[in-house]
Amino acid sequence: VGEECVFDDPATLRAYAQDASRLAGRPAALVRPRREEEVVRLLRFAQQARVAVVPRGAGTSPTGSATAPSGEVLLDLSRMRRILDISTTDLVAEVEPGVLTGELQERVEALGLFYPPDPASSRTSTIGGNIATGAGGLRGFKYGVTRDYVLGLRAVLMGGEILEVGGRALKDVVGYDLVRLLVGSEGTLAVITRAVLRLIPLPPARATLLATFPTPLGAFLGADRLLASRVLPRALESLDRDVIEIVAAARGLEARPEEQSRLLVECDGTRASVEEEIAAAAQALREAGAALVRIASSPGEAQELWQERRSISSSILRLFPAKRSEDVGVPRGQLAEAVEEMKAAGRRHGIRVLAYGHAGDANLHCNLLFDPAWPGAEEAVLAAAQEIHAIVRRRGGTASGEHGVGLKKRAAMTAMLPPASRRLHFGLKRLFDPHNLLNPGKALPLEEAG
Amino acid sequence: VGEECVFDDPATLRAYAQDASRLAGRPAALVRPRREEEVVRLLRFAQQARVAVVPRGAGTSPTGSATAPSGEVLLDLSRMRRILDISTTDLVAEVEPGVLTGELQERVEALGLFYPPDPASSRTSTIGGNIATGAGGLRGFKYGVTRDYVLGLRAVLMGGEILEVGGRALKDVVGYDLVRLLVGSEGTLAVITRAVLRLIPLPPARATLLATFPTPLGAFLGADRLLASRVLPRALESLDRDVIEIVAAARGLEARPEEQSRLLVECDGTRASVEEEIAAAAQALREAGAALVRIASSPGEAQELWQERRSISSSILRLFPAKRSEDVGVPRGQLAEAVEEMKAAGRRHGIRVLAYGHAGDANLHCNLLFDPAWPGAEEAVLAAAQEIHAIVRRRGGTASGEHGVGLKKRAAMTAMLPPASRRLHFGLKRLFDPHNLLNPGKALPLEEAG
Repeated sequence: VGEECVFDDPATLRAYAQDASRLAGRPAALVRPRREEEVVRLLRFAQQARVAVVPRGAGTSPTGSATAPSGEVLLDLSRMRRILDISTTDLVAEVEPGVLTGELQERVEALGLFYPPDPASSRTSTIGGNIATGAGGLRGFKYGVTRDYVLGLRAVLMGGEILEVGGRALKDVVGYDLVRLLVGSEGTLAVITRAVLRLIPLPPARATLLATFPTPLGAFLGADRLLASRVLPRALESLDRDVIEIVAAARGLEARPEEQSRLLVECDGTRASVEEEIAAAAQALREAGAALVRIASSPGEAQELWQERRSISSSILRLFPAKRSEDVGVPRGQLAEAVEEMKAAGRRHGIRVLAYGHAGDANLHCNLLFDPAWPGAEEAVLAAAQEIHAIVRRRGGTASGEHGVGLKKRAAMTAMLPPASRRLHFGLKRLFDPHNLLNPGKALPLEEAG
Repeated sequence: VGEECVFDDPATLRAYAQDASRLAGRPAALVRPRREEEVVRLLRFAQQARVAVVPRGAGTSPTGSATAPSGEVLLDLSRMRRILDISTTDLVAEVEPGVLTGELQERVEALGLFYPPDPASSRTSTIGGNIATGAGGLRGFKYGVTRDYVLGLRAVLMGGEILEVGGRALKDVVGYDLVRLLVGSEGTLAVITRAVLRLIPLPPARATLLATFPTPLGAFLGADRLLASRVLPRALESLDRDVIEIVAAARGLEARPEEQSRLLVECDGTRASVEEEIAAAAQALREAGAALVRIASSPGEAQELWQERRSISSSILRLFPAKRSEDVGVPRGQLAEAVEEMKAAGRRHGIRVLAYGHAGDANLHCNLLFDPAWPGAEEAVLAAAQEIHAIVRRRGGTASGEHGVGLKKRAAMTAMLPPASRRLHFGLKRLFDPHNLLNPGKALPLEEAG
């Protein structure tokens, strides 16, 4: 691969041992390629020597998918970070995997174009990581998720062969959808080295609205009412009382007692449509019982509201460094009931469960808060998480709407997928990686249940 | 399966021998199940007896994917046509495969909801067929294609096992994307028996605009200008001079000489945004050199324009029953040049090539017109089609944006996919259908090149 790409000093390896899941890894070595050719050489060698390899972007995975728990070689793609092309005529961007999502967004918006997928981590996560995990984000309800914007991929298969799928055609139905088979496969099938991403015209205007509700479920009822009034917001985020308190505390404030839930709405489009939609949204939310509806009066005020939303995860982490994050999804109509059940499940185990996130998609970030010093905390939080997964499963939902499976959700995945699906998962893995060397032990059902 | 579902009289089999490709088939029998259980029993028997089965919706495939060329059993799913649920709270519809797409659209729109995928055949094609072929349509540029609206599938594997993938959660990243692996697999991996489809709020308003251009490439330049002005139309359809003449002839009229190309635009959204967008579109098109820009003044007038657009394919067929349809896609910026090249390729072989379709997606329907009575016509049209595929390939495009591969595009597919991709295609087929009994000989690269 070249000496200057390989690191094995203990300090560097320690620095790369964890991802955002805080699960510990112990990589045997770290490889930081600058070119696809170096990835090819590494995977050719790895196959011959039967060495396992774990691809990694910026290490923002909350599931452990980017850790090397068993002495694997960590393949850090963050140095391959060129934006190779932004085409205003083809309406695509071509990028290397290490490009930060937020950087790409800024670059294309300066040209009047728009890359809608927007994980809350967009400033720190990479496009390659977004693709590998099928990242979602705040604009999913109107614009879809990362999956919907990947037109083509170049990837390296274990053994070093290059796989090219899709391309710059905006529609393509020739063959099985290998593009989307790689999206969300968490580095278990191939290592992405280049992506062609779809861009759309940048909507000329947008507006933000904040609504607060005097009841815990008010935000969900408001979201339902808003969608029933045929408004299609680009973001529709709910916060529960616990999150409101933590966000306030992070700014040294106290949450007002009458604010039991909160909804943050963003509409985009033409100037006129944005005015019309945000007014219709405000009316729907007032009718749904909002105590306060405030339309941001300046771009700065809107930005502040969204910055606060994006910082929720880190605000919680500062107060509860040992929190467990779940990002469950349920059928939309069951959202309010499911949240009540999940909070009750937490209470039974002495765990505070807070819920915030994508109310449009019914994909909520449930954080299980606990003090690790408390004896029995680990067991209690695991038991509560298992109950939460069972609730979601019973309701026909999913254990992960956007974080992925990694190490943390393999048990939940195993319980969720029917036997035929589990069998096909193992078959797909064997087809792409017969020696189980690419990110082994991640993102698949547990073998014993297979 | 039950006698009342099985037909083998010659008249019935003849009626089902072709699909819209007009390729002849000779099915050994026709099975028309009413329930999933009957599909299960058929595929259990078929595996045991090593009988090949071809799934079929409404037979509107232009590629032969729904024909039984080698004495297979034809599995017609058009009797399984219940709309099981339309949920205004979950924002999904749950349907059987034989539901007509247009019927579903009408039913959900009556409830203020919207199922955007809109193949031109929507009144006659089925949801199951749309999913199996990954159908596109007129609203792809703004809203995406069938692939983007399938949340969950129930399907029967060869051998009779039921496979459930996805569900009602709007976002789900647990496991490999088996939903999208089935979408567009043209019945070669499993038989779809139920689908959960995503719905969105129905945009309250829409408007249609017709622009004509005095130059052959005017419509493409207009489309570029329109998108650069940050308008995001829900449909953006171009017609070339040949199509304009045929459409006029079908109504007993003559096309005006100054009308060399035409663009049909539809915007949707709020009432205000639609006015704003359609005005911005009109201005962009005038700036791009449109001779005439007419905004439809009534829903009736708009409907007439779209009805005319939808009838293009049948209008051409009436005049040129032996036409060959290609639905190539190229990178957007190359659309105008590619069309000129394709027309020139046709001329070299004495074949008139006309082009109309989805200018937003750069996915055009190229029809090769010829008189089958002319000696050498078959060879000439095949040679022209091969040149067209080579042009598209050279430009990094695709042999099919929405029709699929079926029988007709296997050679083009083989040339288009790199070796690693071809190998994975065969591997996927073997994984799902080891005895090659589900729609054999369709939608895969040619073996000899594998």
